[in-house]
Amino acid sequence: MKWITLLTDFTERDGYVGIMKGVILNIAPQAVIIDISHEVPPQDVPRVAHMLGRSAPYFPAGTVHVCVVDPGVGTQRRGIIAQLGSQFFIGPDNGLMTVLYQCAVNDGLEIQIHALENPEYQLSSVSHTFHGRDVFAPAAGHLVNGAPLNSFGSPISDPVLLDLPEPQRTDHGWQGHVTSIDAFGNLACNLDAQPFAHPETINIRIKDRWISGLSATFADRQPGELIALVDSFGQLSISVVNGSAEKMLDVCVGEPVWLIEN
Amino acid sequence: MKWITLLTDFTERDGYVGIMKGVILNIAPQAVIIDISHEVPPQDVPRVAHMLGRSAPYFPAGTVHVCVVDPGVGTQRRGIIAQLGSQFFIGPDNGLMTVLYQCAVNDGLEIQIHALENPEYQLSSVSHTFHGRDVFAPAAGHLVNGAPLNSFGSPISDPVLLDLPEPQRTDHGWQGHVTSIDAFGNLACNLDAQPFAHPETINIRIKDRWISGLSATFADRQPGELIALVDSFGQLSISVVNGSAEKMLDVCVGEPVWLIEN
Amino acid sequence: MKWITLLTDFTERDGYVGIMKGVILNIAPQAVIIDISHEVPPQDVPRVAHMLGRSAPYFPAGTVHVCVVDPGVGTQRRGIIAQLGSQFFIGPDNGLMTVLYQCAVNDGLEIQIHALENPEYQLSSVSHTFHGRDVFAPAAGHLVNGAPLNSFGSPISDPVLLDLPEPQRTDHGWQGHVTSIDAFGNLACNLDAQPFAHPETINIRIKDRWISGLSATFADRQPGELIALVDSFGQLSISVVNGSAEKMLDVCVGEPVWLIEN
Repeated sequence: MKWITLLTDFTERDGYVGIMKGVILNIAPQAVIIDISHEVPPQDVPRVAHMLGRSAPYFPAGTVHVCVVDPGVGTQRRGIIAQLGSQFFIGPDNGLMTVLYQCAVNDGLEIQIHALENPEYQLSSVSHTFHGRDVFAPAAGHLVNGAPLNSFGSPISDPVLLDLPEPQRTDHGWQGHVTSIDAFGNLACNLDAQPFAHPETINIRIKDRWISGLSATFADRQPGELIALVDSFGQLSISVVNGSAEKMLDVCVGEPVWLIEN
Repeated sequence: MKWITLLTDFTERDGYVGIMKGVILNIAPQAVIIDISHEVPPQDVPRVAHMLGRSAPYFPAGTVHVCVVDPGVGTQRRGIIAQLGSQFFIGPDNGLMTVLYQCAVNDGLEIQIHALENPEYQLSSVSHTFHGRDVFAPAAGHLVNGAPLNSFGSPISDPVLLDLPEPQRTDHGWQGHVTSIDAFGNLACNLDAQPFAHPETINIRIKDRWISGLSATFADRQPGELIALVDSFGQLSISVVNGSAEKMLDVCVGEPVWLIEN
Repeated sequence: MKWITLLTDFTERDGYVGIMKGVILNIAPQAVIIDISHEVPPQDVPRVAHMLGRSAPYFPAGTVHVCVVDPGVGTQRRGIIAQLGSQFFIGPDNGLMTVLYQCAVNDGLEIQIHALENPEYQLSSVSHTFHGRDVFAPAAGHLVNGAPLNSFGSPISDPVLLDLPEPQRTDHGWQGHVTSIDAFGNLACNLDAQPFAHPETINIRIKDRWISGLSATFADRQPGELIALVDSFGQLSISVVNGSAEKMLDVCVGEPVWLIEN
């Protein structure tokens, strides 16, 4: 165990992420630190929950994922350390690990969650506003140094989990939502692509627009055309060839999407 | 061999680059991954070809450069792995390696190119939209693990190469182009600085502006002044002292530049 | 000694930072490179002096901090290498190390500064515009390889130090300044929080606004409320709960701030 990923909304402008890396390396010089992103929209916990759920499974077993999107820093909200199958999570107890946790539950994997209470695994002075540096980075360092989970604090059986919207069955298909929008303006939806036995017969509706059939890839259609396809995570994505569906449709995360099977 | 660089247009916002790193480390735990840039303008293949050509020579021999600017992902475009002298390239076969390839040809270095066809060196399921994760990252991992180039697929003798504009001789000098613009608004031109025996006698024309003589450095002139100088890669650059030539001149990549020797 | 941090205003767009990493690894393959930030406002030397002063103490002893914000590149300004207590600084001699230097002086730590003059520790050709690649990155590589400070060049006893504004005593408290603004719009001030025995009795004035009392944390007040608190570095910060004090107050670095003790 030596890999630690960092996923925050700190941006890279102010050096906060660099400070967290310094703290980790001071405690665990052998740690190898990998950035997932520091440019997520500020305080967007659901988005990061999705990103972590999509990213973590690609990392080696034993990787420690430190996530800090933390509007409640300085309040009584708990800090937690969790084993979710072969991956580890460290961060505030505000639902950031929801997707990863639910995958572990669904797959019947080992789950163990503890509070970050032990002051020996925190910096000597803990601020009210930067637990990334004072609590979470030190916890990651001590974890890769071999500290067992139960040495960090008491076990937790009621972690905060987000109530993420689930797709609903309709008379002729499914209704889901846009769950995230990437930098290219592609709209990721919470509609699983597996059921689509006949992708050419499917119609998609978002706002007042209809999309007929699923494309296999961007290059199937003309530049500027609005298309639906199965994204690289196996879910429905709405895109514009060489363009931005976000801008063309003027939508945000949460926009409803209808899938109609003919 | 253990260094792998990443150069993409994915931005760092969505975690795609982090996922590629996870895939690499899962296959080659000893790999050391270095980011060159993930903020290049989307789908700007010529720009990345220039960046790679400028960057790669500074890396240790045996470094593997994974470049993913890939408008044709999911089509029949090939993926390739190439040895170009002491450096290695992995990415789509769309011209990204053009500059690095031409340098290797000019210097008489060893060149070997193979298609990425072997499914053993890809993830078990290859998507239509994210070959950075499914094809190129795994190839890099297996290459640093010691897989020989010919184990990846059949040899390729006709890689896609960009038709980059060459400077032209004119009656009184040269005509070239702006080939890239950096974050400071400096305009890099494809005009080699070596021939300028008398830099003080040279005139530069771009749009309707004339620049008289080459400056040795920014500090030679006044803030706000438009200057020409030899950049750190030995080529003509047009800049504004403490300002942006891009904004002052309102130019894009491809803008013609005339160099007149008196 | 193997850690090298990089702190520049190069952005990550153009690959300049990647090139510096290549140069370092070519010289010192065992080096571990950590980014502090490359997104600082262009040529903002005082801001980086503050960032370095805040960041460096969190890194392991022997870490080498390469800082390149260098409006004078190509002029006669010196390059320097400095030991400041347990941390090392490499960069232009333009005041970037001011805060770190003054901390070392205040703490009575060992200080040793040398000019970067030895051409053996530079690239074979030094450009006029990219000393990050040609001078500072090579120096960092040779330093972690064990080169003693006095082998880089002559000792320097008069480094350039910034004249940073000091808080002033007033009749009823202190007058200080906004010294930096982070990506969330929080205003960091050069007013030390230690003297505030009764934080609830303090009033803060900035522009035409008054803030009554110090909050312990963001969550003490309502979203949108302007608050003052002790930041994670022990200094006064002015913030807006779930918002941006920079935007609400329309202020820049240098704005005066009054602290009135009742």
